[in-house]
Amino acid sequence: MAKGKDKKAKAAKDKAGKKAKKAKVVKVAKPVSPLAPKSFPDLPAIEGVELSAVAAGVRYQGRLDVMLARLAPGTNIAGAFTRSATRSAPVRACEARLKGRATAKGAAIIVNSGNSNAFTGAAGEASVAAVSDAVGAALGMPASRVFPASTGVIGEPLPHERIVSAVDALVAGLRPGGLNEAAKAIMTTDTFPKGASAEVKVGRKVVKIAGIAKGSGMIAPDMATMLVYIFTDAKIPQAVLQKMVTEACDTSFNCITVDGDTSTSDTLIVAATGTSAEIPDAKGRAGQAFAKALGAVMLDLAHQVVKDGEGATKFVEVAVTGAKSAPEAKTVAMAIANSPLVKTAIAGQDPNWGRIVMAVGKSGAHADRDRLRIALGDVLVAEKGMVAKGYKEADGAAHMKGTDIRIGVDLGLGKGAATVWSCDLTNRYIEINADYRS
Amino acid sequence: MAKGKDKKAKAAKDKAGKKAKKAKVVKVAKPVSPLAPKSFPDLPAIEGVELSAVAAGVRYQGRLDVMLARLAPGTNIAGAFTRSATRSAPVRACEARLKGRATAKGAAIIVNSGNSNAFTGAAGEASVAAVSDAVGAALGMPASRVFPASTGVIGEPLPHERIVSAVDALVAGLRPGGLNEAAKAIMTTDTFPKGASAEVKVGRKVVKIAGIAKGSGMIAPDMATMLVYIFTDAKIPQAVLQKMVTEACDTSFNCITVDGDTSTSDTLIVAATGTSAEIPDAKGRAGQAFAKALGAVMLDLAHQVVKDGEGATKFVEVAVTGAKSAPEAKTVAMAIANSPLVKTAIAGQDPNWGRIVMAVGKSGAHADRDRLRIALGDVLVAEKGMVAKGYKEADGAAHMKGTDIRIGVDLGLGKGAATVWSCDLTNRYIEINADYRS
Repeated sequence: MAKGKDKKAKAAKDKAGKKAKKAKVVKVAKPVSPLAPKSFPDLPAIEGVELSAVAAGVRYQGRLDVMLARLAPGTNIAGAFTRSATRSAPVRACEARLKGRATAKGAAIIVNSGNSNAFTGAAGEASVAAVSDAVGAALGMPASRVFPASTGVIGEPLPHERIVSAVDALVAGLRPGGLNEAAKAIMTTDTFPKGASAEVKVGRKVVKIAGIAKGSGMIAPDMATMLVYIFTDAKIPQAVLQKMVTEACDTSFNCITVDGDTSTSDTLIVAATGTSAEIPDAKGRAGQAFAKALGAVMLDLAHQVVKDGEGATKFVEVAVTGAKSAPEAKTVAMAIANSPLVKTAIAGQDPNWGRIVMAVGKSGAHADRDRLRIALGDVLVAEKGMVAKGYKEADGAAHMKGTDIRIGVDLGLGKGAATVWSCDLTNRYIEINADYRS
Repeated sequence: MAKGKDKKAKAAKDKAGKKAKKAKVVKVAKPVSPLAPKSFPDLPAIEGVELSAVAAGVRYQGRLDVMLARLAPGTNIAGAFTRSATRSAPVRACEARLKGRATAKGAAIIVNSGNSNAFTGAAGEASVAAVSDAVGAALGMPASRVFPASTGVIGEPLPHERIVSAVDALVAGLRPGGLNEAAKAIMTTDTFPKGASAEVKVGRKVVKIAGIAKGSGMIAPDMATMLVYIFTDAKIPQAVLQKMVTEACDTSFNCITVDGDTSTSDTLIVAATGTSAEIPDAKGRAGQAFAKALGAVMLDLAHQVVKDGEGATKFVEVAVTGAKSAPEAKTVAMAIANSPLVKTAIAGQDPNWGRIVMAVGKSGAHADRDRLRIALGDVLVAEKGMVAKGYKEADGAAHMKGTDIRIGVDLGLGKGAATVWSCDLTNRYIEINADYRS
């Protein structure tokens, strides 16, 4: 049976391959995730941010695949990146450039999809330099203030000349707003563009935050396979912004998982143009409000990434309480969220809580069978080392039929708590990843 | 698309559920793994071991689901068990009983499939006691020399009275040999029974080793979801045998993975009846030869478990060399073997070595992008941080079309090496686990 399917998949692949060669045409329109929001949100323009996007043919013809952002003089940049030991050349460049200071010449972000420029050796660094130099020259700023990213296939040399050739068109197209097109230009296997925004009142001014993200597979913490760009007009010191970003990352992008795989290219950049109210520190009222709003935007984007998880049909929240420590709670939550057996049970709408017990047991965290409490939604299914008294499978099954699945686990050992988000594991995940080279 | 499939699966499930209720009939015959050996091996009878198997209706009617082994007086028993924090009542009993001494009354093994008696609270311990007492009484030995195991659904009370009622029939059926039926009685989602044997010449005597195993999902190291029973007529001290078993486990059952999930019930028991030649220690010539043969039987059974991995169509060996240490090599090998993206690429016969780079990077082990060498079979695909000179995708693709896939990774950092075995991740895995409560 599996063999038959593989043959079919192979045939489809060969056919697709031939098509691509013949017409160099884009992939067929993909079905949009059933968990997608109804529409892309109406994101505000951020003063000091201009965006543009073009179709440069990096891998496919006729689709937006490069975006450029020009950021006003004095813009501060904070970021977070994959911790992969084999991270890509653009990630290494961003990490180094984050240490630089804001300049009177501003800064820029250049992102391409279609090719990740990862594991491309010395050529990869040369590509980063070529693209950064071209953008810097065109915008009159040092290359060290250009923040590059690439996403797509790993291990193939980046045809950077296609991006360099597109720089003039990108610069010509720069305009305030434009986050919608930018969100589309950075998509790979995503089925919908992702955006979120928030506003914070600081004195009589309104600080705006607006961000976009991409990512749908190879999603796991530290970080998910994602590119995230968030813009704000707040005037905030780089160190304050960086600390806020790092902290918010720990409870948003580092708490989501689709398949436990970690990209070589994950990049989160937050750019603060400083054209609106001042946020002098993190502790004050303005700082707290801003950090909260930034965290909300990041969490919203993180949830959207999970909702676009490859093949996802269910959005899953795993909340663990009562662990010996917060890190142990996260370990347990991630063991549940990443378990293929738990994820396939969710896909099958099966309230198979035995697999949750299994995942708790294998996590390596402290656990006592006889103190464990497990709930599906508001239904208590297990406690005291066995099925809960009065639990009816029909009640658990009813919760599993919904789209938003909540798994609650209390270990009964301490005060450690953590919540992570994931999706189910379906045939569609296999189809996407066995048949398509991402 | 995914939705449509889920509906179909749901309908099939409902239909199956109705069928089961109507006729209490066994599941439909499952397709046998394409990686299965052509036939069950011809296993020798081990002197001092008698076996029997019956259909006790633990969960399904009309299939062998309980096996009993009677072991001769003086039999020494060694073992290894799941390290899960939520391990089952029978596992806890075996761990405790392993500390007991061989007796003149012999020992016994009783195993049921259909229900794992895991996460069943105090009732679980009562079930273990009831079954052990019944077997002990029938065979005239203390319950503390009865080694129980249960495999199947988690979290449902074990209907132990069905096993207790079957003990008389089991005892009446005891006979030398019978490993074939025993191998069938312990199967759950397995598509074929698993057996292996070896012989060692010690002086003028021949020591025999014969074993059986079950397991196909929830397979991950420490240990896989497995039950393994190995019998030998060697006369070997318990401490010597235990040390050999522990060491061989580390390079066999603890080096396989199907889905990264760990069972609550994994049990490996090695029983040495002492009716043949003496193996006084591990260091002597006889000890070394015996340890080697035991290790070969264990590795053979471990490979068979992977080859019966749920939905497997490819047998995958991941050999990592050049790591800073052996544990780091194993970490990298397991990260590759467990990566859903690597596993789906193998299913799709795609030489997508970028995903191997990704898995190395996420493993947490030391790695240097520019020293990494990756081979698929005998084809060098990447080195020095990029694609290997002269590599042609057609060569990599040719290797991926085979059934035995070999992934070689050299980290170029030290002398640490490890090899692990796994299988691909196919739609069939999802179907089995989303539609069937294991």
